[in-house]
Amino acid sequence: MSALAAANGGHEIAYGEDSTTEALAALVCETFGPEARIFPVFNGTAANVLGLQALLPPWGAVVCAESAHVHADEGGAPEKVAGIKLWPVPTRDGKLAPEALLAQLFDRDSVHRAQPCVVTIANTTELGTVYTPAEVRALADAAHGAGLLLHMDGARIFNAAAALGASLRAFTTDAGVDVLSLGGTKVGAMGAEAVVVLRGGVGGAPPAPCAGGATLTAALPFLRKSAMQLASKQRFISAQLVALLGGGLGLRLGAAANSRAERLEAGLRALGSARLALPNARQANAVFPVLPKRVIDGLLKTFRFYVWNEAAGMVRLMCSWDTSEQQVDALVEEVARLLALEEQGGSGA
Amino acid sequence: MSALAAANGGHEIAYGEDSTTEALAALVCETFGPEARIFPVFNGTAANVLGLQALLPPWGAVVCAESAHVHADEGGAPEKVAGIKLWPVPTRDGKLAPEALLAQLFDRDSVHRAQPCVVTIANTTELGTVYTPAEVRALADAAHGAGLLLHMDGARIFNAAAALGASLRAFTTDAGVDVLSLGGTKVGAMGAEAVVVLRGGVGGAPPAPCAGGATLTAALPFLRKSAMQLASKQRFISAQLVALLGGGLGLRLGAAANSRAERLEAGLRALGSARLALPNARQANAVFPVLPKRVIDGLLKTFRFYVWNEAAGMVRLMCSWDTSEQQVDALVEEVARLLALEEQGGSGA
Amino acid sequence: MSALAAANGGHEIAYGEDSTTEALAALVCETFGPEARIFPVFNGTAANVLGLQALLPPWGAVVCAESAHVHADEGGAPEKVAGIKLWPVPTRDGKLAPEALLAQLFDRDSVHRAQPCVVTIANTTELGTVYTPAEVRALADAAHGAGLLLHMDGARIFNAAAALGASLRAFTTDAGVDVLSLGGTKVGAMGAEAVVVLRGGVGGAPPAPCAGGATLTAALPFLRKSAMQLASKQRFISAQLVALLGGGLGLRLGAAANSRAERLEAGLRALGSARLALPNARQANAVFPVLPKRVIDGLLKTFRFYVWNEAAGMVRLMCSWDTSEQQVDALVEEVARLLALEEQGGSGA
Amino acid sequence: MSALAAANGGHEIAYGEDSTTEALAALVCETFGPEARIFPVFNGTAANVLGLQALLPPWGAVVCAESAHVHADEGGAPEKVAGIKLWPVPTRDGKLAPEALLAQLFDRDSVHRAQPCVVTIANTTELGTVYTPAEVRALADAAHGAGLLLHMDGARIFNAAAALGASLRAFTTDAGVDVLSLGGTKVGAMGAEAVVVLRGGVGGAPPAPCAGGATLTAALPFLRKSAMQLASKQRFISAQLVALLGGGLGLRLGAAANSRAERLEAGLRALGSARLALPNARQANAVFPVLPKRVIDGLLKTFRFYVWNEAAGMVRLMCSWDTSEQQVDALVEEVARLLALEEQGGSGA
Repeated sequence: MSALAAANGGHEIAYGEDSTTEALAALVCETFGPEARIFPVFNGTAANVLGLQALLPPWGAVVCAESAHVHADEGGAPEKVAGIKLWPVPTRDGKLAPEALLAQLFDRDSVHRAQPCVVTIANTTELGTVYTPAEVRALADAAHGAGLLLHMDGARIFNAAAALGASLRAFTTDAGVDVLSLGGTKVGAMGAEAVVVLRGGVGGAPPAPCAGGATLTAALPFLRKSAMQLASKQRFISAQLVALLGGGLGLRLGAAANSRAERLEAGLRALGSARLALPNARQANAVFPVLPKRVIDGLLKTFRFYVWNEAAGMVRLMCSWDTSEQQVDALVEEVARLLALEEQGGSGA
Repeated sequence: MSALAAANGGHEIAYGEDSTTEALAALVCETFGPEARIFPVFNGTAANVLGLQALLPPWGAVVCAESAHVHADEGGAPEKVAGIKLWPVPTRDGKLAPEALLAQLFDRDSVHRAQPCVVTIANTTELGTVYTPAEVRALADAAHGAGLLLHMDGARIFNAAAALGASLRAFTTDAGVDVLSLGGTKVGAMGAEAVVVLRGGVGGAPPAPCAGGATLTAALPFLRKSAMQLASKQRFISAQLVALLGGGLGLRLGAAANSRAERLEAGLRALGSARLALPNARQANAVFPVLPKRVIDGLLKTFRFYVWNEAAGMVRLMCSWDTSEQQVDALVEEVARLLALEEQGGSGA
Repeated sequence: MSALAAANGGHEIAYGEDSTTEALAALVCETFGPEARIFPVFNGTAANVLGLQALLPPWGAVVCAESAHVHADEGGAPEKVAGIKLWPVPTRDGKLAPEALLAQLFDRDSVHRAQPCVVTIANTTELGTVYTPAEVRALADAAHGAGLLLHMDGARIFNAAAALGASLRAFTTDAGVDVLSLGGTKVGAMGAEAVVVLRGGVGGAPPAPCAGGATLTAALPFLRKSAMQLASKQRFISAQLVALLGGGLGLRLGAAANSRAERLEAGLRALGSARLALPNARQANAVFPVLPKRVIDGLLKTFRFYVWNEAAGMVRLMCSWDTSEQQVDALVEEVARLLALEEQGGSGA
Repeated sequence: MSALAAANGGHEIAYGEDSTTEALAALVCETFGPEARIFPVFNGTAANVLGLQALLPPWGAVVCAESAHVHADEGGAPEKVAGIKLWPVPTRDGKLAPEALLAQLFDRDSVHRAQPCVVTIANTTELGTVYTPAEVRALADAAHGAGLLLHMDGARIFNAAAALGASLRAFTTDAGVDVLSLGGTKVGAMGAEAVVVLRGGVGGAPPAPCAGGATLTAALPFLRKSAMQLASKQRFISAQLVALLGGGLGLRLGAAANSRAERLEAGLRALGSARLALPNARQANAVFPVLPKRVIDGLLKTFRFYVWNEAAGMVRLMCSWDTSEQQVDALVEEVARLLALEEQGGSGA
């Protein structure tokens, strides 16, 4: 947190754009490998849409999990800004398996089917699950083997890394990911996300008769500007990413969030209530308990969370980088209180 | 057929654009009701995309069946030309039920969810099933009750009408459909489709500060031009639609196709083979038999059809307006021959 | 005309799609050179937009004359369907000079300026002027030298060829044009236009990670489908183009139109009126006389034409492939009658 | 500056989103009138594109000065993100006159011409000129009288206000502007721009069958999200705008920049060199001297500015909110030194 404060403090100082950008570029190579190139943008929606658009021909489509943020929660930005066709695939736990990907690869020569050219996954997923490096590698191999590229939405990449006990590179560059959305906002940045191209030769990229065959890294500055994502004072975004990548701050904040979620899960489990189920084991910073409707309604009066599945009574409790142990304990106590009421009410009904 | 030949013959005659358009406009009011207005376009993709776009705000989304042509087979045109977000819903038989529609109507105030503003159905569906007028009405009521509009893809509307024994109006205007794609190409036209606005007051339509609040019918000519669907010699498209709507030609051609499919289904069923299943009863001009893989492969050498589900061995046999009884019988005979071979081969394996 | 009637008659015959396409493909190679590939579409707007889109990266821009159809008269289709930025350049006579193109090539590395990647010209131009093969070559050399590609809008290509007394190839492929819009509708087709890729290796074309580096010719079928320009019964379009390219019909029809315009210009000039000016010498099928306002108004009661410049009193009289000598003479007579009235009225005022 | 530092300091404090937004909303009503509503976005490109898109039907076009930032310097974002057709109009000094606007209003019913629905102007303009309240009112009356709406790009609105000695409201709401881009970045914000709807009833706005006729203010949150311009931590943007609007900070910073430009102009004029011309009188914070090429080249070694017209030797010297008197004086001295060298070099050559 103090590092972030320092970065914030730094905003007043008129950094030459170069010095911050250079620092970030060097850190990104250190973190993701020598071919990695970073393009800061304003938010996660833009990082995803630009990263995907850069990898796609104008007629191309993207395979994703049905629960993927890019499909379900971007307000249609991929379709509306970049004309991207999504092929959403149902999954059990938010994770795409290679078989599910391959099952989408039919009618490969038909113009009637928008051709899958990219597969996108998120780590962690919208359901709080985590891909291991081996799982990412298996998908990358399946994708590359079929001529597709692999994109990763890393809005919660620091939570994934903390959960895996792995370096950021282990489940991205080293596992075959081509382009990454790097997310800083969910671990405390004011607003700092980026497209990171991990492999230099990828794509051949957008058609560039005018640029003599632009590479992805040559294309992205132009795409970013025309998508209204170029910050005139980009050093303020870069500084936040420098703060998160340098010295492991992002990882520590991700670990903190995961640790709170662990405490939350343990606390709920310890309640030992028959009316509370935890069907999915926590993997990172999200816990998905199933609760009686009246408990959910009561809890919403004090806490802010998302009702994941209203029919099933499942809610998503997300711990943030700055969630305190006190907040976790307060929520568990409130669940306990509401469950007790429910039991009385239940017997009274 | 002779009527179509006459219309084709008519192409040489330099119709004043007005006379053909007037004739078509009058026929459309006669067929669909006095508020109906028609906007001819080049193909079914365009009719669907323009009809949907005209009903949507720029941020709006469309609910459709997962098997819908507009989602599965338009090469991504809705997304790429008009930025349309689709919410595909799994169905058992290609038909959307009101409950499935209503289940999509959550997070109504959230900008994170592309807001469903239109529901689109096809009659007949991609799976050859037919909505009854009552089923369309139920969907229209559910849609309108929730502030959505109802669009119908009528690429095979004449087959549906023939199957229902109903007028075109009975399951469109009278059942609450707001905008229709009227398809002529699949019943013999060279290339004649249209957007038909069925209800005059619908929409309030695209924002029109410059036009003092344009109605749908005022908006469509501009949308059509900017979507590259205005024919300079539109009378040639209009003439085809006049031929199909006038004197019931389209309905007769639709009925002919359905009748061939009936003969086909009966012929296959009569083979009585244990290796041939017909799980879905035919409703219009499509039959979906399940066959052994080698029979499918053999059949593809002589006949052209679509393998609907490779894993299940289901194929789609579509009868056209000009499929002859001889062609139907030849296919049934070939299936019989291949099944016989398969039984020998099967016992030999 | 009889050849066109035959092509029209051919509509009834169920050509295999292949045979007509094959015939067209062969004719196109014969006409434009062995690397030429043709992609029929429905109208000229689409031919232009698809041809340009195929040559552009997503962030690219197009230099054109301010009077170009693609800028002034397509209802915004290039911007709305394909997101194309146009840099319109004022010209004296509708023709772009190499210097005017080069003057647009500044800020080449700046993301703030949408980068010119293609230059498009029309032959004939909207102002009825004609580029010679040498003029096209000079532009092609300037464009290619700066890393841009050259597109030609050939909506009136047959008029240009007739005016030049040159083969279609002489001022397209052989003069360095990369992609051509081939127009049939203005010389009598019902509706037949096409994108023609003239040089095989051009572009490197749309980004195609999924297709291993698609060429323009591999990209266009997908672009065409997603832009709603694939005809299910494409043979009807192909047949019209075959009729125009084969046996020189298109050239004869173009020459007929030019010849009527020559007669028209001579007729007007022979009137010898001080109130009629012909500032621009006719080059193909368009004549641009300057007339008194009341004469224009009177003429519009009987004839249909476009008032090119209301302030200057200039009108555009376009002769078509089927304009008759009688029609030309009738117009000249009516101008004479109205000018006489004007002189009387003028002296009376 | 201290106010801005305070706002920056505030970033660490977890403002409830509501309190900052409420403060901003109240300030905006106070500043622009009770109907004004503000929608913060990330940058000026987005403010312009969203504001225009919100006012346009999908087929609509925008009239602007040829030198307008939205046409010349947004990397094609209006076309690429929102499909906006621009009709650029040459001007003498960057300002659109009502006559120039009206001259664009021809072919009002033709689908072939993308219909002008909005006119956009910038205050100050790209050429550093300033519209007076009366000039804005004249344009607003001309636009409204013809059914168009008026948009103002206020990226440098504080410089305009300081130059005019007028309130922000005097030349926006009170002069008939419908939608404004409010710019904070050029007067010191880290990155804070906004769309401000000035008139409640404007537009009727995007078609909203699903929302029962959405107003502009109901439409903008959805447009903003689908254009990737919603900040998850919006309070950081809001806080910057609060700092600029509250207590007149923005106006003071704008005045400071103008004052430096005044000093710069006076300094240059005082050099009394025959080789330095100042053809356009300064109006706000930009000075456009004409200098010998070698002086420009020499100056570029130490100072960063834009060569406005290379052929004419005109450069744009822009003073910023934090340009110091020392910096101004240093530039003037360097010009003097280079001019002296030039005179010697000139005689030596």
